[in-house]
Amino acid sequence: MRAVDLILKKRERGELTKQEIDFLVSGFVSGQVADYQMAAFMMAVCFNGMNRRETAALTEAMVNSGDVMNLFSLPGVKVDKHSTGGVGDTTTLIAAPLAAACGATVAKMSGRGLGHTGGTLDKLESVPGVSTEQSEERFIEIVKKTGLCVVGQTKELVPADKLMYALRDVTGTVESIPLIAASIMSKKIASGAEGIVLDVKAGSGAFMKTEADARRLADAMVQIGRSMGRRTAAIITAMDCPLGQRIGNGLEVADAIYALSSKLPLTDPLMEVSLALAEKMLMFAGAAENQRDARARLTGAIESGAGLRKLADMLVELGGDERYIERPELLYSTRERVDLLSERAGYVYSMRSDEIGRAAQLIGAGRAKKEDSIDPRVGIEMAVRLGDYVPCGERLATLYINDPRYAEKARRAILSAIDIEDAPPEKKPLILGAVE
Amino acid sequence: MRAVDLILKKRERGELTKQEIDFLVSGFVSGQVADYQMAAFMMAVCFNGMNRRETAALTEAMVNSGDVMNLFSLPGVKVDKHSTGGVGDTTTLIAAPLAAACGATVAKMSGRGLGHTGGTLDKLESVPGVSTEQSEERFIEIVKKTGLCVVGQTKELVPADKLMYALRDVTGTVESIPLIAASIMSKKIASGAEGIVLDVKAGSGAFMKTEADARRLADAMVQIGRSMGRRTAAIITAMDCPLGQRIGNGLEVADAIYALSSKLPLTDPLMEVSLALAEKMLMFAGAAENQRDARARLTGAIESGAGLRKLADMLVELGGDERYIERPELLYSTRERVDLLSERAGYVYSMRSDEIGRAAQLIGAGRAKKEDSIDPRVGIEMAVRLGDYVPCGERLATLYINDPRYAEKARRAILSAIDIEDAPPEKKPLILGAVE
Repeated sequence: MRAVDLILKKRERGELTKQEIDFLVSGFVSGQVADYQMAAFMMAVCFNGMNRRETAALTEAMVNSGDVMNLFSLPGVKVDKHSTGGVGDTTTLIAAPLAAACGATVAKMSGRGLGHTGGTLDKLESVPGVSTEQSEERFIEIVKKTGLCVVGQTKELVPADKLMYALRDVTGTVESIPLIAASIMSKKIASGAEGIVLDVKAGSGAFMKTEADARRLADAMVQIGRSMGRRTAAIITAMDCPLGQRIGNGLEVADAIYALSSKLPLTDPLMEVSLALAEKMLMFAGAAENQRDARARLTGAIESGAGLRKLADMLVELGGDERYIERPELLYSTRERVDLLSERAGYVYSMRSDEIGRAAQLIGAGRAKKEDSIDPRVGIEMAVRLGDYVPCGERLATLYINDPRYAEKARRAILSAIDIEDAPPEKKPLILGAVE
Repeated sequence: MRAVDLILKKRERGELTKQEIDFLVSGFVSGQVADYQMAAFMMAVCFNGMNRRETAALTEAMVNSGDVMNLFSLPGVKVDKHSTGGVGDTTTLIAAPLAAACGATVAKMSGRGLGHTGGTLDKLESVPGVSTEQSEERFIEIVKKTGLCVVGQTKELVPADKLMYALRDVTGTVESIPLIAASIMSKKIASGAEGIVLDVKAGSGAFMKTEADARRLADAMVQIGRSMGRRTAAIITAMDCPLGQRIGNGLEVADAIYALSSKLPLTDPLMEVSLALAEKMLMFAGAAENQRDARARLTGAIESGAGLRKLADMLVELGGDERYIERPELLYSTRERVDLLSERAGYVYSMRSDEIGRAAQLIGAGRAKKEDSIDPRVGIEMAVRLGDYVPCGERLATLYINDPRYAEKARRAILSAIDIEDAPPEKKPLILGAVE
């Protein structure tokens, strides 16, 4: 088998066999298939795509490139959730504790990401004392004790993905549904998930700009999961404005605590998406009969405080200081707060969440480069939502900052990201669809 | 400027500027643009093509990557010809001496190729004593003296082409009209040609399988040449059977000598294409008013022996032994000759020239790898042409061999490449069209 023939086969719209895809992926990881060959192959995939069989074979080959978590010692169906990334999206810290409180087993391994805020690991570590670097034994022990644990990777999962992603990033081959789907799903499957619930964002602030592309990505991922014997479902949600009102690491943990303390209405967007994800997690775990049953159990776990206790238990097991859970406002106590006021009266017509996310990164909530450190307490609190009427001079948002140097730039970025018009925007649904 | 943005621009069907293409090519040669980026870029070009401006800019950037021959000290318009490669195609050794005999200046630098026979350099060196490795001064001196010289490259012309071709060869990006056109034309332009006549082959035995693709390639090359201020024209010729009857190095030099000695009729395919090319060379050189005038001068140079004298003069200047020109049969005197006889009576319906070419390579006339040595005297003489009627047991071809080990394999390959049917094939023209 020669790599050049497989590249040509894809270029000429042929279907690659499982053996051929294995050859390319394992050869690339071992160095026998050159990076320029993988780059040409992935560009051909950008143009000609991959069918279901090829995408599943790619994912499996990527999973097999490294270690795979063995979670067999844990009881029940291990469920996981994944979001393709939005601004103010702290659904993991709401849905996972609620699902665990209702009987699901949530054993989740995360990586650290680049972006407007840190990933879930950075959010957890904004609670003083928490360390997400735990041994595999300790991870399993925490899950056995609490039904819930989120930690950093202990093993080298999916090295093929790291290598392929680094190459895609510099060769213009990031935007490809089969490559994105295989990248996400290989990591979920290698980390031991048996039930996978996906939240695919669509809109200006998301990786998938259109609902149609988001649906294609959701379809591709659900097909991969099922072909590999995983219970898999996806919801497609709008990312036209920040999902939660708080953007930042400590701010988002606080938001999750407020949500689990009945301080957010069930109709709040962050709540709506978290519950939709948690419902599917519960059903995959066999802990609910149907959606209605799942919903009743989940709202019960909010009312009883059982969900909050799960989050608190996990944070304490990870070394966290319990006082911050009791006083979440300490998680975002910064040297300065700057209120951003509306310069005109009108309706909040649109909010470019990607620009708001970049402003959060600018003031220190997220990393631009891998080496950057993040400030766990800084961030943005939005005071308005899409469609709200604001008088002139009313608060639109508050910056929580420690370093005043970037305040003005962030202020301008946020104000320019919010359009205020004379008429309210058309009301659009938050959950655009589902693949089940 | 970042390579990834330019790759994305091409992926999204944008038009690259001259500066952007310069950045990619010069960066690739200097190592600042990685080979995996160039590979991804070229795959995107395979899908989205390049327009006239981009293709010309690519060619110019490739020319500028290395040395450029300065032929200003030579008189007149320096004309060159190039063929995209056929079997039994020794037109250079006929058209160039004829053009020179009629007053054109032909100063040609060739590389050595892989293929069924060696390139023109290998053919010339089949004449004992000839060396095509000459200093630049000596090259210029020979051209001044005889009006004609073909030698190996003395300088590093178009290093970008070598690097790009090596990468294309292993990344499935060879088949792309703009990349092929830029590769050919950059070498012609860097070697100092001012008038360029191209022979683009179409058919099963050629790189371009269809007449339409051959015309696209011809158009692209003519546009490049003109946009860079070179007189450029192309003919498109059928490559459905070997062009000349002799295939090999010494055999093809002998064929040229026979042609220049009035031993081939003017209607012979090899003669027809050689004259068509030489006509355009003469007109570009300003040595003929029009095609009719050019044709009259060229046939005069055959009849007078002036063309043959030009070839002989050049060979002698390159160190060749003149006796071989007087007795060309010595150029293909081998230990053994094997006649291949027809196994049935009928019409020669088709001849797969690529398979016949591979048989010539097999017996030692061409190189499979760069390091291979070639045997200048071996080859194949075809005894029939397309459409000929052959009785059973009649000679179809003769193998000229020195190493009997491959005789049987070559015999079978050639016999299986010739289809004999009850009815003759439809007669098709040899010269399919022209771009002028």
